[in-house]
Amino acid sequence: MTNSSALIVGAGSGLSASLARQCAAAGMQVALAARNVDKLKDLVKQTGAQAYACDATDPSAVEKLFSALKATPDFVVYNPSYRVRGPFLELDGGEVRKTLLVTAYGGFLVAQAALARMVARGSGSLFFTGASASVKGYAQSAPFAMGKFGLRGLAQSMARELQPKNIHVAHFVIDGGIRQQSDPRGPQRGADGMLEPDAIAETYLHIHRQHRSAWTWEVELRPWVETF
Amino acid sequence: MTNSSALIVGAGSGLSASLARQCAAAGMQVALAARNVDKLKDLVKQTGAQAYACDATDPSAVEKLFSALKATPDFVVYNPSYRVRGPFLELDGGEVRKTLLVTAYGGFLVAQAALARMVARGSGSLFFTGASASVKGYAQSAPFAMGKFGLRGLAQSMARELQPKNIHVAHFVIDGGIRQQSDPRGPQRGADGMLEPDAIAETYLHIHRQHRSAWTWEVELRPWVETF
Amino acid sequence: MTNSSALIVGAGSGLSASLARQCAAAGMQVALAARNVDKLKDLVKQTGAQAYACDATDPSAVEKLFSALKATPDFVVYNPSYRVRGPFLELDGGEVRKTLLVTAYGGFLVAQAALARMVARGSGSLFFTGASASVKGYAQSAPFAMGKFGLRGLAQSMARELQPKNIHVAHFVIDGGIRQQSDPRGPQRGADGMLEPDAIAETYLHIHRQHRSAWTWEVELRPWVETF
Amino acid sequence: MTNSSALIVGAGSGLSASLARQCAAAGMQVALAARNVDKLKDLVKQTGAQAYACDATDPSAVEKLFSALKATPDFVVYNPSYRVRGPFLELDGGEVRKTLLVTAYGGFLVAQAALARMVARGSGSLFFTGASASVKGYAQSAPFAMGKFGLRGLAQSMARELQPKNIHVAHFVIDGGIRQQSDPRGPQRGADGMLEPDAIAETYLHIHRQHRSAWTWEVELRPWVETF
Repeated sequence: MTNSSALIVGAGSGLSASLARQCAAAGMQVALAARNVDKLKDLVKQTGAQAYACDATDPSAVEKLFSALKATPDFVVYNPSYRVRGPFLELDGGEVRKTLLVTAYGGFLVAQAALARMVARGSGSLFFTGASASVKGYAQSAPFAMGKFGLRGLAQSMARELQPKNIHVAHFVIDGGIRQQSDPRGPQRGADGMLEPDAIAETYLHIHRQHRSAWTWEVELRPWVETF
Repeated sequence: MTNSSALIVGAGSGLSASLARQCAAAGMQVALAARNVDKLKDLVKQTGAQAYACDATDPSAVEKLFSALKATPDFVVYNPSYRVRGPFLELDGGEVRKTLLVTAYGGFLVAQAALARMVARGSGSLFFTGASASVKGYAQSAPFAMGKFGLRGLAQSMARELQPKNIHVAHFVIDGGIRQQSDPRGPQRGADGMLEPDAIAETYLHIHRQHRSAWTWEVELRPWVETF
Repeated sequence: MTNSSALIVGAGSGLSASLARQCAAAGMQVALAARNVDKLKDLVKQTGAQAYACDATDPSAVEKLFSALKATPDFVVYNPSYRVRGPFLELDGGEVRKTLLVTAYGGFLVAQAALARMVARGSGSLFFTGASASVKGYAQSAPFAMGKFGLRGLAQSMARELQPKNIHVAHFVIDGGIRQQSDPRGPQRGADGMLEPDAIAETYLHIHRQHRSAWTWEVELRPWVETF
Repeated sequence: MTNSSALIVGAGSGLSASLARQCAAAGMQVALAARNVDKLKDLVKQTGAQAYACDATDPSAVEKLFSALKATPDFVVYNPSYRVRGPFLELDGGEVRKTLLVTAYGGFLVAQAALARMVARGSGSLFFTGASASVKGYAQSAPFAMGKFGLRGLAQSMARELQPKNIHVAHFVIDGGIRQQSDPRGPQRGADGMLEPDAIAETYLHIHRQHRSAWTWEVELRPWVETF
């Protein structure tokens, strides 16, 4: 995958950092986008990536991001999500709206900007990071279900429309917590009880490399011990 | 169902008018909400309903609507949707945002205002009108899929949280075109080839009347000749 | 529904008895089929039904049943199921096979015999009783999941093929325990915590009566307090 | 994966042959099982595999197969399926029964025999090959839908029960035709319009190698140009 490039939107620690490292290790040029690029310094150093500040819910910011990229990315991953939780009656309307816009609408904006370039070139992969909430609406979590169900609808619709144009669209149902060093649940989940970001990233990369005669649109990933 | 009341949001012709008539015929007080109430004159005359102007995506307008109601509704139906269609690259970002807000976010606002009153009383039904796009993302229709998938996530999450509080939450997958006199597809679909609004409304009313030991969360409705 | 007739396969107590009573009350002639008809005496007396002994997994027994019916049934419900549970390694192969044959294969045999008559007449309803296991494979319950998933595949395939021939095919996901007087879980589930058979039957009858412009293929039913 | 071994049940040409070659290339010992082992001669020569005659629907034959294996397999794939198609009323009952037994019941028998050995050792992968019919019941194809839905129910139930015992259970939805040299549809589907068996096998092997913190239970694979 030398001479190819990746753009990871919603970059921080965890999955996005693993993706950046594995893309860089595979010889890809890496671009990272996040609202706050300060937190990306170490990752930029490790991977030689370019970092771009971008609010994915702002159409002009998204367009500016893509205009600034040195190359049309071959591989774009949309990770951002936002969520507000709690008893339904206590949810704040503005936060619910933000959840929808960050989790789903931003996915549309990034997808459209990416595809304008990919379709012109005739190839590319566009992957969306989902969650348990993408396929199951949990109590006290209606806003996140709205956003993640919506993102899945976007990904499925795009797959139907754009795969025949040689654009690989995939949706990942990450069904469990991703391990973070700061997460207090880690130890109590036991060995390998939370998803290792590197392990998830390996499946993203595998799916990016699939031959187009056998493309995956959707895949589920969860820890061996996860209840589902 | 005498002494009970219904609120139909997104009222116009078609399904909402059939619902209004059947609720009125069953002895319920009926309230209708729509952005434009001028079109509701005939329906108001037929059903004795009260009509209220309301933009369901505006939190203060939704709150004002509920404050104006003469009684806490026993039965609330959220119908509004908006859609923009077309090749993915030609979609207008503002229209996509509006699709999400009308189709999904407005459902949240109405649900929250309704539930604040229903939970206080300890009972109520809250139904959401979905579409084929609620469960299948079609090509050239990503925005509607985003909105309708999102609405379904809302309904499922609310069912899990609120049914144990005696609030019946249901989601209807209307998988086909609803017959309208003006629809040119009607004749070519053949006899009963499009959903009759009265027939759909009968199933809504049946589900509203279900005993709580056997509540439906989701039901599909489609014409006998529909391909699916 | 006078002058019409119903056949309930897998008749005993519970849902099938409620269906028989409601069909009889609606003026339908009722036929009941079960492996053991002795247990049907009271129900026969209450409903004026004819009872037929039939092993639904035996093609010739199914054919004999339909030949013995006084009229082509307008409404056929397939209820039988069998299950073996337990740790996967302890499951008995013969019991697993029986689970598949009773739960799914018998559904095929009854459906085919019913349809041969319904298609000739040009109308009819054929309904299948599913369970939580129809859409979710639980641990320690693989055989039942195999059977009920299989029955759902049958029902969906038949809906696609036969609804355009005016045969209404529907599948019911009964997601929870059906109340039986002998069931020790009843009291601990609290008020209306298990599905009342009469309540389920009302939804079956409603769906049987639907206008063909708005047919339901699948509907879920569960108690208001059920976790799902 | 040196010193590990694979068993491919339902071996012939196509996917199973690709799996055998990729397993052998990765250093695994390969065992092949099929009703008719004569057709496996070339594959045996290419891969150094052992071939075993086995009717997967016969419990004693399955047990005999596992007893004959030189090692407990680390990786077992269940491929067999059988199908009868046609207008519902013309389906032969015996063929429908065979479809269920080969497609679903054989999967149970092989899974149980494999797991008895894998659980004792404490690890293993057990993968099931599904089809479009695993998740969608097509007209004129009820028997295959029954069998493949049933197999999916088995796989899901096993995943819930056995993944916490370190047994990786996965289900593959192969949504499209697998290319075969003899298939007349090949050319008309265009470049990469049918699934390449080697491409499918690569995803099976990737999923077999996944870290257990991020296991896939289900994945879809289809050609880029496939309508879905």
